[in-house]
Amino acid sequence: MTVRITVWNENIHEQENKEVAERYPKGIHGAIADGLIDNDLTVRTATLQEPDHGLTEDTLGNTDVLIWWSHCANDEVADEVAERVVKHVHDGMGFIPLHSGKNSKPFIRLMGTTCNIKYRHSGETERIWVADPGHPITDGLPESFEVPSTEMYGEPYDIPEPDRTVFISWFEGGEVFRSGVCYRRGRGRIFAFRPGHEEYPIFFQDEIRTVIANAVDWAAPTDGADAIWDEVKPAEPLDDE
Amino acid sequence: MTVRITVWNENIHEQENKEVAERYPKGIHGAIADGLIDNDLTVRTATLQEPDHGLTEDTLGNTDVLIWWSHCANDEVADEVAERVVKHVHDGMGFIPLHSGKNSKPFIRLMGTTCNIKYRHSGETERIWVADPGHPITDGLPESFEVPSTEMYGEPYDIPEPDRTVFISWFEGGEVFRSGVCYRRGRGRIFAFRPGHEEYPIFFQDEIRTVIANAVDWAAPTDGADAIWDEVKPAEPLDDE
Amino acid sequence: MTVRITVWNENIHEQENKEVAERYPKGIHGAIADGLIDNDLTVRTATLQEPDHGLTEDTLGNTDVLIWWSHCANDEVADEVAERVVKHVHDGMGFIPLHSGKNSKPFIRLMGTTCNIKYRHSGETERIWVADPGHPITDGLPESFEVPSTEMYGEPYDIPEPDRTVFISWFEGGEVFRSGVCYRRGRGRIFAFRPGHEEYPIFFQDEIRTVIANAVDWAAPTDGADAIWDEVKPAEPLDDE
Amino acid sequence: MTVRITVWNENIHEQENKEVAERYPKGIHGAIADGLIDNDLTVRTATLQEPDHGLTEDTLGNTDVLIWWSHCANDEVADEVAERVVKHVHDGMGFIPLHSGKNSKPFIRLMGTTCNIKYRHSGETERIWVADPGHPITDGLPESFEVPSTEMYGEPYDIPEPDRTVFISWFEGGEVFRSGVCYRRGRGRIFAFRPGHEEYPIFFQDEIRTVIANAVDWAAPTDGADAIWDEVKPAEPLDDE
Repeated sequence: MTVRITVWNENIHEQENKEVAERYPKGIHGAIADGLIDNDLTVRTATLQEPDHGLTEDTLGNTDVLIWWSHCANDEVADEVAERVVKHVHDGMGFIPLHSGKNSKPFIRLMGTTCNIKYRHSGETERIWVADPGHPITDGLPESFEVPSTEMYGEPYDIPEPDRTVFISWFEGGEVFRSGVCYRRGRGRIFAFRPGHEEYPIFFQDEIRTVIANAVDWAAPTDGADAIWDEVKPAEPLDDE
Repeated sequence: MTVRITVWNENIHEQENKEVAERYPKGIHGAIADGLIDNDLTVRTATLQEPDHGLTEDTLGNTDVLIWWSHCANDEVADEVAERVVKHVHDGMGFIPLHSGKNSKPFIRLMGTTCNIKYRHSGETERIWVADPGHPITDGLPESFEVPSTEMYGEPYDIPEPDRTVFISWFEGGEVFRSGVCYRRGRGRIFAFRPGHEEYPIFFQDEIRTVIANAVDWAAPTDGADAIWDEVKPAEPLDDE
Repeated sequence: MTVRITVWNENIHEQENKEVAERYPKGIHGAIADGLIDNDLTVRTATLQEPDHGLTEDTLGNTDVLIWWSHCANDEVADEVAERVVKHVHDGMGFIPLHSGKNSKPFIRLMGTTCNIKYRHSGETERIWVADPGHPITDGLPESFEVPSTEMYGEPYDIPEPDRTVFISWFEGGEVFRSGVCYRRGRGRIFAFRPGHEEYPIFFQDEIRTVIANAVDWAAPTDGADAIWDEVKPAEPLDDE
Repeated sequence: MTVRITVWNENIHEQENKEVAERYPKGIHGAIADGLIDNDLTVRTATLQEPDHGLTEDTLGNTDVLIWWSHCANDEVADEVAERVVKHVHDGMGFIPLHSGKNSKPFIRLMGTTCNIKYRHSGETERIWVADPGHPITDGLPESFEVPSTEMYGEPYDIPEPDRTVFISWFEGGEVFRSGVCYRRGRGRIFAFRPGHEEYPIFFQDEIRTVIANAVDWAAPTDGADAIWDEVKPAEPLDDE
């Protein structure tokens, strides 16, 4: 079955910063989409600037996994669109926030915490360790890999205790971070992945593309049972007291 | 150290339904407060009808544990007040939603799910089983106890997998329900407890009062470490590349 | 990819009890195996009476998912074979203990708890509720189904808090039980499923066969990353202090 | 209520290595015990060399929290004693394995995994980050602290997903590690804490002593409910079919 992906990007740095535009000529969303070319996937992109931010009921209803990149414009996402994303996650859509997508309205809304971190704009080395080598999102990876230059995110990361802690990052400047964490909310699977600062060509890196492709496989909806959330008659006879 | 409790109630059935008013002459909040008389507790109450629903910044700033009863007026709680409750939970305030408090804005916001259930207005027997006899909220309880007449809530209960499943209910009509579940969000502890329909004198029942008193002890804030969520300098020297 | 299943059975009641022998003419293992006929599966069986209980290194090395039925002879399983099963689960083999398989040496060893329960030999009705309708093990199921006559298992069930609580049972006699629970240990997925007393034709029941087939799909090994558990050289230069 | 602590040590390096003996003149157990002097605690010590390794039924029956240091002699602990420790944890005794106590028989038996790690004997810097600043074990700590010279342990750490990840370590050589993790098994609380190599005066360090003292408070038994694990009569009438 073909997995239908929507890659969403706020798409602002590419418009406002010449270096980012040169690094990502098709936009960050374009680079992520290019990394996902595969026979069993269909990939479309959407951005903040489109009507409904490109995330209409129709688009989300035809999306199996939503990849989300955002940074400076998290507050500009309409509440109505954020709630629509949350609702589709509850109904089974996979959701993969990248980088500061951890500060996006849908992710905060799904976690129920602040998702706060510490950070440093430093261009330092990050080494991403596999903490859970049995997890399918790690398929094909070495036990660690480096992002040569990146922004730092550091613990404490104010999230609910993860269902699975898949990656933990080491930073040159002395911090650590749970860089890949899994959750389920309703029927939807969520994987938050830390890397992806716009000032570095991170989404062209092989290991990063492997993680995102694996995460798409993992987060794609699966079938389940019906759920009846309504007033119901008893299955057993009740006492007439 | 004295634990400071605020018992919040939407306080509507008591005003509109004569039978509820006779059952709970001091209101449901009054009955819950009366069940918590203890030397190490101070208990105040607050209701929907007060300015800011009685949940001002000052009141929440002086509350260690907030007990919350609501049912028909969950939508009437101001978003601003709901967000204020969420923020105080993140900062460490314990939160104990009772009965349909599971549909309250703060609880849904903290869980990130719909918190949907099935239900039946039936006056049937509920038997509440201790699933986690090692949990302090069960202290002094037998391994199960009955609520003779109650509304039914049934699975599936659309919540994140609990940190701890403390109670599971059996219903005469054939359903089951995770009646007592624990979470942490930020520094705050959350215990959602199912019983408490307004048509029955449930908050006068000894076992229910024991559970609520234990839950208050468990949910009271504890100290922890500082958290710095800001831009930071490196602890280790960075390469000049 | 074909999933290779081994169905293990202590195979004692079938030899010693005429009614069980008539109910399960191919043994309980034979009935479970018959329920798994599918193009993408290969199914073999093994029993306590074989050398190494039929669970040699070679057999386990060629098993993707081990289904385990046991009851009266849990103590007769050799420690060495139990440890071999545990080791293969750590390396990725799926493990599905059925019924009193929860008291088997491998399951207790993987859980780290007593796995104690209460029980009643009663032939009463069990209604199995889906608690997690988003879980793939529930695919194709209604929101609840009944086992008309069965032995009762009741809470508290002394297990670690599950990764996922998939099913919760209601019993006619007034108890509840977490009938389907998921864990991971090392690379291996574990699903413990309660039903299956030998005195009833439970393994011929459609819903039960659906659950077991779904659980096999879910528990089959997936690829992951390498793990190096050894003395290692530093990735970063160390200070010469 | 006074918390009764037993500090157990294999006590071999102190006998065989002159430098360790000089660093820890009262043994590692003595240094840990000295760090716990407090009015509400009683502290005794026990070592491998004593009959029953000093962990008789009587001693464990009068121990609220068992602190465990081991390294080179994990295999020399008698299976019977290891099982006795496990049983007391199930019954509520707190258990705090330090350093290579993660390879002890009781901890492996309680986790159900291999507890494997990577390591390096290097004398490098470790920076321990608080990942969960709301956890009482972090009370009074800064958001990170350093152990100036230590052995390295690195991920992947083959443990079940923790109930709580309290500390994550950064190592000078480029690795990370979940240095403080919490579990419950039966009624017993478990906190595994990484630091403590015998070649460094780690158990004299203030922050380490703070963590151990906090962990003792956290792991001390609490009351709960009764659990009946036996054949039981029905609470509800059964159909005579």
